[in-house]
Amino acid sequence: PEATEDNCRPNLPLDAIINLDHGDPTMFESYWRKLGNACTVTFTGYQSLSYFSNPKNLCWFLEPKLEEEIKKLHNVVGNATVEGYRIVVGTGSSQLIQAVLYALSDPLNEPKPINVVSATPYYSSYPEVTDFVRSGLYKWAGDAHNFDKDGPYIEMVTSPSNPDGVIREPVVNRAQGTLVHDLAYYWPQYTPITSPADYDIMLFTISKCTGHAGSRIGWALVKDVDVARKMVKFIEINTIGVSKESQQRAAKILEVITDSCSQTVRTPELDNFFEYGQHHLTERWKKLKVIVKRNGLFTLPKFPLQYCNFTGDFTKAHPAFAWMKCKEDVDCEELFRGHKILTRSGKRFGSDQKYVRISMLSRDEEFDLFVQRFSAFHGIANGN
Amino acid sequence: PEATEDNCRPNLPLDAIINLDHGDPTMFESYWRKLGNACTVTFTGYQSLSYFSNPKNLCWFLEPKLEEEIKKLHNVVGNATVEGYRIVVGTGSSQLIQAVLYALSDPLNEPKPINVVSATPYYSSYPEVTDFVRSGLYKWAGDAHNFDKDGPYIEMVTSPSNPDGVIREPVVNRAQGTLVHDLAYYWPQYTPITSPADYDIMLFTISKCTGHAGSRIGWALVKDVDVARKMVKFIEINTIGVSKESQQRAAKILEVITDSCSQTVRTPELDNFFEYGQHHLTERWKKLKVIVKRNGLFTLPKFPLQYCNFTGDFTKAHPAFAWMKCKEDVDCEELFRGHKILTRSGKRFGSDQKYVRISMLSRDEEFDLFVQRFSAFHGIANGN
Repeated sequence: PEATEDNCRPNLPLDAIINLDHGDPTMFESYWRKLGNACTVTFTGYQSLSYFSNPKNLCWFLEPKLEEEIKKLHNVVGNATVEGYRIVVGTGSSQLIQAVLYALSDPLNEPKPINVVSATPYYSSYPEVTDFVRSGLYKWAGDAHNFDKDGPYIEMVTSPSNPDGVIREPVVNRAQGTLVHDLAYYWPQYTPITSPADYDIMLFTISKCTGHAGSRIGWALVKDVDVARKMVKFIEINTIGVSKESQQRAAKILEVITDSCSQTVRTPELDNFFEYGQHHLTERWKKLKVIVKRNGLFTLPKFPLQYCNFTGDFTKAHPAFAWMKCKEDVDCEELFRGHKILTRSGKRFGSDQKYVRISMLSRDEEFDLFVQRFSAFHGIANGN
Repeated sequence: PEATEDNCRPNLPLDAIINLDHGDPTMFESYWRKLGNACTVTFTGYQSLSYFSNPKNLCWFLEPKLEEEIKKLHNVVGNATVEGYRIVVGTGSSQLIQAVLYALSDPLNEPKPINVVSATPYYSSYPEVTDFVRSGLYKWAGDAHNFDKDGPYIEMVTSPSNPDGVIREPVVNRAQGTLVHDLAYYWPQYTPITSPADYDIMLFTISKCTGHAGSRIGWALVKDVDVARKMVKFIEINTIGVSKESQQRAAKILEVITDSCSQTVRTPELDNFFEYGQHHLTERWKKLKVIVKRNGLFTLPKFPLQYCNFTGDFTKAHPAFAWMKCKEDVDCEELFRGHKILTRSGKRFGSDQKYVRISMLSRDEEFDLFVQRFSAFHGIANGN
């Protein structure tokens, strides 16, 4: 479908509810809109009827072109090593998280579910994703900082962290742990790329990389072939593979952003995607910091200046979320809601109600309205 | 991507392994190929970035156009009532089965998992889909014929049945049961449409309807709004919605087959999709029956002549699978494998090794090679 008034939302009313609860990455739409048809893909009626993409691949439902473009992009960006890794595609990284939990816990044949932990503030979906069907294989065990049990466990290391954008290391460091690195935000628009990650299990998603959240495409880079095989098994049982249309479109999108990073390949109209994103986020963060400083009611995390191998510059992180803390002890989510700004409460991340997570990835118009409304905050206690 | 030598497979070697284990519905490719570009869909880079399709809909990730086309198709075919139903889209019907189990069991808050049953021969994926993460909410309890426990249970009623194509009724009929009707094969190419189904929970999939298995699109028609809401919750946690590209392409495909059923709308080049499918399957079943009759080694299910409201004719079922029984007590799957024909053993369906399920939905070339090789079977015991 073509862009409609509804999906452009050109006329947001001044008193509209601004939903910054989800990390819906519509900010990137402006980049893709500028490209016009340069990134268009077409499907005839007779394409991709089969369940299979490549029966010879361990991940038999992975489109070969997507595999190739994932590798090329990581090589160009320098954020992850691909040599020696298996690629497993998933229906977004949510499915991959479940596939990993299954792959790591099922072969252990433990009588009790394996503990799954992550350091607070942790990604708000981990507890629900781990526990929703009350699996006998794995269970959510909360904040990694408090974990001191013997036996096998799985630690989710989200780096940069969702919600707070901080670079993370594992915190449990006990004998029988397996680490899962959720690197959804380890891309140059959000954070300096300091070295290619080479952890055993790394998760990525196109939602946060290029903004195409509607496509539901994520991928895992997995060193151990048995873990990869078992993840494939999970996805086979859960959804019999992953949409071919989404995979083929994702391949095209990744190809275009890889091209956009190349001085030799890219056309003059094609802005470097990551520089565009970084510039946009830097501007947004500047505006937000000015207000936070002026009204004196909140604090934001601080990020170190680091050398980014991708941009060749010293930069600071400009995360996808603002993890904002009220200086007074109030329900911060409620406070924002009183101004018709929907955020996600710190409580959802294993933290407390003084915090909220605010998406920085909305469309310009929504962000501008947010900034305008936020700059009118004068006190906390009375909700004004 | 264009059709390549590999995906057309024009030159299958005479001794090729023929994989009729999966129900990969590539038979329908020939129909879609004839249509050329009449069914082509295009995606620009800036479409469908958001997670949301329609935030106002209970199923917030369902593309409005797909919802509309699903309703139109059921109305034209007359195989299901849509009035008064909620539509929940899923990543294939596998995900919907899990969503239903979750939706029906989680609110009961039972101390023990709810029993899930289906009459043998049952769809081979049910046990695995039910038990793979060892859920505390539901568990596989086998053949519905043997189920005599008190308390809540879920019965999967697959009609027409996979593997055997027979029209099914529930068999347990105890007080606290909930029925889930898996109607993946209730389409005119497979079976006479005798009336519009109006069960509480009905599952469909585009894989078996149009052949687009690679798209991973299924849908549920659900009467109870709370069940629908809870199914949506499952899909939200499991995969944060369903590929927008697949949904939009599926909408176009359903639109085209609905048009193909209309005397007034369809162009002369556009064959009625279901008549095409029915004709093709009738021809294949004829060939298969001739061989079975001639070699006298196997039996096939028999189907009654019934009036089909869609075609306006008396027809018999021509199922997507041949459920074949060896007259002698041998491992039938092994027997076929000896001839490089991969089938699925009856054991997988809760039945026995004398049975195999053979896909009737392969490409012409594979089916012809199968028929040729099968017609050379002369005895069973020695595998010749």
